[in-house]
Amino acid sequence: MKVLIVGGVAGGAGAATRLRRLDESADIIIFERGKHVSYANCGLPYYLGGEIKGEENLTVATPAFLKKRFNIDVRVNSEVVAIDLKARKISVRSADREYAESYDKLVLAPGAKANTFGISGDGVFTLKDVTDTLSIDAYIASKEVTEVLVAGGGFIGTETAENLAKRGIKVTLAEFGQQIMPPLDPEIAIMVQEELEANGIKVLTGMGIKSVKNVDDGIEAEFTDSSRARFGAVVLAMGVKPESALAEKAGLKISPTGGIATDDYMLTSDENVYAAGDAVAVIGADGTETLVPLAGPANRQARSVATNIAGGKDSNGRRVFGASVVKAFSLTAACVGKNEKQLKAAGVKYLKAYAFPMSHAGYYPGAKQMALKLLFAPDGKVLGAEGAGKEFVEKQIDVISAVMKFGGTVNDLAELELCYAPPFNSAKSPVNMLGFIAQNILTGLCPTVYPEELTEDAFVLDVRNPSELASGRIPGSVNVPLDELRSNLYKIPKNRKIIVSCAVGLRGYLGVRILKQAGFDAYNLSGGFKAYTLLKKAGKIR
Amino acid sequence: MKVLIVGGVAGGAGAATRLRRLDESADIIIFERGKHVSYANCGLPYYLGGEIKGEENLTVATPAFLKKRFNIDVRVNSEVVAIDLKARKISVRSADREYAESYDKLVLAPGAKANTFGISGDGVFTLKDVTDTLSIDAYIASKEVTEVLVAGGGFIGTETAENLAKRGIKVTLAEFGQQIMPPLDPEIAIMVQEELEANGIKVLTGMGIKSVKNVDDGIEAEFTDSSRARFGAVVLAMGVKPESALAEKAGLKISPTGGIATDDYMLTSDENVYAAGDAVAVIGADGTETLVPLAGPANRQARSVATNIAGGKDSNGRRVFGASVVKAFSLTAACVGKNEKQLKAAGVKYLKAYAFPMSHAGYYPGAKQMALKLLFAPDGKVLGAEGAGKEFVEKQIDVISAVMKFGGTVNDLAELELCYAPPFNSAKSPVNMLGFIAQNILTGLCPTVYPEELTEDAFVLDVRNPSELASGRIPGSVNVPLDELRSNLYKIPKNRKIIVSCAVGLRGYLGVRILKQAGFDAYNLSGGFKAYTLLKKAGKIR
Repeated sequence: MKVLIVGGVAGGAGAATRLRRLDESADIIIFERGKHVSYANCGLPYYLGGEIKGEENLTVATPAFLKKRFNIDVRVNSEVVAIDLKARKISVRSADREYAESYDKLVLAPGAKANTFGISGDGVFTLKDVTDTLSIDAYIASKEVTEVLVAGGGFIGTETAENLAKRGIKVTLAEFGQQIMPPLDPEIAIMVQEELEANGIKVLTGMGIKSVKNVDDGIEAEFTDSSRARFGAVVLAMGVKPESALAEKAGLKISPTGGIATDDYMLTSDENVYAAGDAVAVIGADGTETLVPLAGPANRQARSVATNIAGGKDSNGRRVFGASVVKAFSLTAACVGKNEKQLKAAGVKYLKAYAFPMSHAGYYPGAKQMALKLLFAPDGKVLGAEGAGKEFVEKQIDVISAVMKFGGTVNDLAELELCYAPPFNSAKSPVNMLGFIAQNILTGLCPTVYPEELTEDAFVLDVRNPSELASGRIPGSVNVPLDELRSNLYKIPKNRKIIVSCAVGLRGYLGVRILKQAGFDAYNLSGGFKAYTLLKKAGKIR
Repeated sequence: MKVLIVGGVAGGAGAATRLRRLDESADIIIFERGKHVSYANCGLPYYLGGEIKGEENLTVATPAFLKKRFNIDVRVNSEVVAIDLKARKISVRSADREYAESYDKLVLAPGAKANTFGISGDGVFTLKDVTDTLSIDAYIASKEVTEVLVAGGGFIGTETAENLAKRGIKVTLAEFGQQIMPPLDPEIAIMVQEELEANGIKVLTGMGIKSVKNVDDGIEAEFTDSSRARFGAVVLAMGVKPESALAEKAGLKISPTGGIATDDYMLTSDENVYAAGDAVAVIGADGTETLVPLAGPANRQARSVATNIAGGKDSNGRRVFGASVVKAFSLTAACVGKNEKQLKAAGVKYLKAYAFPMSHAGYYPGAKQMALKLLFAPDGKVLGAEGAGKEFVEKQIDVISAVMKFGGTVNDLAELELCYAPPFNSAKSPVNMLGFIAQNILTGLCPTVYPEELTEDAFVLDVRNPSELASGRIPGSVNVPLDELRSNLYKIPKNRKIIVSCAVGLRGYLGVRILKQAGFDAYNLSGGFKAYTLLKKAGKIR
C-alpha cells in the first residue's frame, strides 16, 4: 500500500506515524510545502518572547528523525499542485522539478492559511510557521524595532502581543471586532483585555487595518476609522482559512464552511482520499458543520485517518467542542462548546449562570477569584462554558468538556466528585457551584435575572455590607445588608419585581430565598455586581 | 417543622444552611460537642506549618454568624447522648445541665473520630479539630519541641509531617502498613515517600507504634519491632472511625463497615432520621458499601439531606468514588476510584496502563514529568486512576473522575477534548495518552506485560539509546536502540517471548509494532524502566 500525505504538521505527521505503527509495510510519503515538518505550531508566539529558545525547540520531529524512527519518506519544500482522483496521482512541485506520484490512499492535511485581506509590505508578517517566526524575530532584531502593531485579537494575536511585550516592545493590538478573543463572550474577554492593558499593551477594539504603507522610518498603518499610526513591524493575526483550494480544484466536495468535507471517518467525497486538521470541516457542539483550527482535534483526526486507512473504523476526530485555553500574562482564559453569542445567533434557547469562585479553599493562602460562565439548555444539558482567572481555570473547563462529551447536564456538574485539598480546590468545587446555581435557576428555587436585563421599573435590593458599596453600585439600588434583611422586610415593596444583588450572586440567592418565602416577587441578579461590572465594561449594559 | 442536627462541621452545618434556604420557617438547631462549628477540617495541618495563620482563619462560620445569616440556633459544647426514636426526642448534655429536645426530623452528622488504639499521654495528640490543632501548636511552642513522631502516613499524617517539617521540626513518620498513603498503590505512594524524605522527613514503613511513655525529656515511643526512640511530641494520624455509637445505641441500623446505614436518600433505618458525613456508610466505585471520610462527599450528603427533608428527592451524596488529592512539598498525588490493591483483594478482573507524560508541552519551559496509572476492566470501563507529579496531576484525576461518573471507558479517555496551549497541556493530553495506551492493550495492537510479571525465561529487549542505560537497566536485558531495530531484527530470537522495554513505554510500543509485524512474539513493558524502577523501590519486584 502506498499512502501519500499532503502536509507535514499535526494532521499529516500524526497520520503518518500512526499509520506506520499500524502497518510496517506501507510506503508512506509526506509532502510538505514549507521547510519544516512537525513543528510546534502553538509554540511559535513563545519563541518571539524568548520563552522558547532555539529554533530546534520549535521542531518536534525532523525529516531525518521521521525516516529513522518511522521509515517515513518526508519531502520538504515540495508542494502538491494537483490531484488526479481518477488516476490516483498527484503532481508535486519542488525547487528543481515537477513530478507525479501515484497513491493507493491520499491524506490531505494542508492546514490553514493566515488571512491577510490583501495587506502586505516589508515588515508585515503572518505567524503561521517556523519560517514566519524566524523572520519576525530577525526583522525585529536587525531593525531594532520598538513598536509593533498586532492586527487581530484572537489566540495568536493575544499570545503574540504578550510575547512581544515581554521582549520589551511597545505593542498595539487592534481587533476589528467589538471584543478581543472571539471564542469568549465579551464580559469574559474584557478580563483578557484588561490583563493585556495592565501589562502595557494598547488594545483597540472595533478597529481594523485598512492598509499599510512602507515609509522611511517603518510602516504606516491606516485603521478603519481612517486614523494612522507608525510602527516598526506589523504582525497579522486576523484568523485563518482552510487550505482547501487544492482539494476543490481536484473536484473534492467542499463544505459550505470552506473546509474540506468528510464523513465521520474523515473520508472525503473520494473513496481513496482522507483529510485531517485545520483544512477540514468538523461537527461542532451544536451538531452543525464548522471550522475549529486547533491542535488537539487535528491530532485526533490524524489518528482516525490512519486507523481507517489501516482497515479500522474510527470516528473519534470529527466531533469538536472547541475546548481551548489562552494565557495572557498571569491570566488564563478557557472555553468549551458554544458561547452566548453563538447560541443567540443560532436562535438556540439557553440559560446561563455566572460564578466567581475562589481557585482553591479561601482559607489557604494564594486563592484567586475566577470568573466562570455556564450556558445550558432549558432541559439542563450543558451547552458551553468559559472562564478567566489566575489559577485552575482550564481545569474547570476540562471537567465540563468531559461532561459535555457524555451529553451531561447541570445536575452532573453538581454531582461531580473532584479532588479536594485546600491548595487545589474547595470542597464544593467551582464546577459544582456552577451546577448548583444552574439547578437553582432551573428548579425555580432561585428565579434569576441577568445584569443586561435590568430595567428601571425593577426595585434593585443590594444586600452587600455598607463597606462594600465603595467599589460601586447599581444606580437606584437600595442597600439592606443580607444579615439585616429578615428584620427589615417592611422596607421592601410588595407587588414589585425585586432584583436582589450582591457581590457575586451567593448572598443574592440567600436574599431571594428569604424574600420569596415572605411572599415577595424576588429575583437574583446572576453574578451580582461583579457580573454587572464586567458586562458594563464590555459595553453590554448602557 | 423542628429539625435537630447532631454535629456542626461539614455535614451538619451544610445540611442546616441548605435547609434554611429551602425552608425559612423551620426551627433548626445544631448541637456540637466541641467548641467550634463549621471549621476548616482540611486546613488543620496547614495551621501547624504556619501556612494558615490565625485561629479565625480555621473557622468558616461561627455560631453567631450562623444565627445572624441563617437564623440557626447553634449550641456548642453540647453533646447529644441519647436518641429516643419513638418519642422523637434527644438528650443533650452541656456543661451545666442535661435536657431533652424533641424533633420532627433528626440529622446525624457526628463525623469520625481519630483512632488511637489506646495510645495516649502528655504530648500525645490527635489532629481532628481546632482544639487539637491549637493544643499541638501551643505544646510545641511552649515545650520548644524539636522532634515529633507522626504515627500514620495517610492524608493527615503526610500533611502534618510536611507542615511540622516546614516549621523546622525534625519529623519521623511511622506507618504500620507497608506503604504510606494507602489510597495509592505502592509504586505511586513511593513517590510521595521520596518527596518527604527529600525534605528531611524520616519515613518508616511497616512500623507501628506499640506504646508511648512519658519520660523526663519528652516521650519514649516503642515501635512494633520493639525498638524505642524519643520525641518531644507525638501526633496520631492512624485513620478514623465513624462516630456511630450514638446511632447504634438508639437502635439505628449500622452498616457492616461500621458506618451509619442509610438508603440512597441518606435516610437511616428510622423514617425521621437522616445522616450525612464521615459517620455514614456510602457506596463506593465498585457498588459495595464503604467508608470515605472526605469533605466533598460530606457536603453533597448534607445537601441531599436538606433537600429530602424539605420534600425533595436527592440521591446525589451516596455514591462516592473517593476522588482525593494530597500535597507533599512540591509533589501532588491524587486518585479516584479503585486502586490495584483493592481490585486484587476484591477479585475483580482488571488491566492497567502506566504513563509518564509531561505536565505541559515539552517544548515550553517548566514541563514536569508525572506518573499516571489507570485501572480498567476487560470491557474498557474505567475503574480507577492515580498519579503523582509536580504540576497538573489532580487535573487529570478530576477529568477521569468525570468520565467515571458516566461509567465511561478508555475510549472516552482517548476521545476527550481538553484545553491545550503550551503552558497548560499537550495536544495529546496525559488523559488522552492513558486512553490510547489502554486501547492498544485492549485491541491487542500492543500486547503488554507489567514489570512485576517479568520472568527469567523472557528475552528483555531494551530499546533505549545507549546514553540512557547509565541510569540503570533491567538485569539480563539486551540493548538495541529503537531506531536501529528494523536493521537488527536478526539479533532478536524467534520462538521466544520478547519483552520490549524503554524509558516510559512509548518506544517500547513502537518496538512491539515493528517486531509483531515481523513475526515476533513481542510484548511491551508497561511504563518501561520508569515503572520498573518505581515498583522495585516499592518492593514489588524482587
